Amino acid sequence: MKRIFLLVALAAAAGIVAVTARASRRADQAAAPIFVTQIPSGYRDWILISVAHEEGNLHSLGAVLGNKVAIKAYREGKLPFPDGAIIAALHFQHVPSEENNKIFGRSQSFIAGPPTNVQFMVKDSTKYASTGGWGFGHFADGKPGAEALLKTCFPCHARAKASDLVFTHYAP
Amino acid sequence: MKRIFLLVALAAAAGIVAVTARASRRADQAAAPIFVTQIPSGYRDWILISVAHEEGNLHSLGAVLGNKVAIKAYREGKLPFPDGAIIAALHFQHVPSEENNKIFGRSQSFIAGPPTNVQFMVKDSTKYASTGGWGFGHFADGKPGAEALLKTCFPCHARAKASDLVFTHYAP
Repeated sequence: MKRIFLLVALAAAAGIVAVTARASRRADQAAAPIFVTQIPSGYRDWILISVAHEEGNLHSLGAVLGNKVAIKAYREGKLPFPDGAIIAALHFQHVPSEENNKIFGRSQSFIAGPPTNVQFMVKDSTKYASTGGWGFGHFADGKPGAEALLKTCFPCHARAKASDLVFTHYAP
Repeated sequence: MKRIFLLVALAAAAGIVAVTARASRRADQAAAPIFVTQIPSGYRDWILISVAHEEGNLHSLGAVLGNKVAIKAYREGKLPFPDGAIIAALHFQHVPSEENNKIFGRSQSFIAGPPTNVQFMVKDSTKYASTGGWGFGHFADGKPGAEALLKTCFPCHARAKASDLVFTHYAP
């Protein structure tokens, strides 16, 4: 009888430990953002959402593309974006085109220079619950950005709450 | 006999007139450029070639897209572009984004404002032989541009002879 009691007590203790470990893992997941660590395949063939030019410290010319799920949501004006939507921002150095300026006879033309990075927002409301349902990714030369950089994505995008954390509007 | 001769003479004369008319029509066609008068269908879903920012009198932010034939030629680095290639340039007003600047806390963000025009280059080395094999098109609000405007396309593009009259390079 004593032996049985001991076994039950041990099993209960083990159960408590297991439950506690699971709960703590869940809390960690909720607290720590998960980032996009793989470049979504085929993104360079996606449909144009819009173009952007950032000055400040960036001097960047960009094209924002969307996969089919994202484009459908944009065109139908539906928010929030559904799971499966992916938005890609291709960034290039904003550089003058000497070639074009020579032909135009004046300095007026700026084009996409060397690529700087490609950034992604991947919608998965379960996986990325802790960052508004969006997973953020940044790749330069095919390599993912540092965690410190990736941690800056969500707080800034969170300010665009009215458009489901997405800055770029669809250009007709 | 006289009647037959008269008929033959009349037929011959008519033939000469017809031949002359055809020749003159051909000469006119060679001299007068033919423009693209219909918007190529589905162009908004085409693949991105690159982005561009024009100042001078334009203040324009643009996205250049290509159909499958054009994209294949770009990616394979093959010049001249084959017949069937179509390049679309979507132009928008280059405007500051008050929305983004507010979030960034500084004036740095420029986006695609109202659309200004969509321009096309359609490769058909027979039909557009008089303008380097390219047909030029310009549409604002869905309506084709005036002939006087369209006549300015070829002389300027002709200066980009090394890249088969195409200004835009493919952005990776």
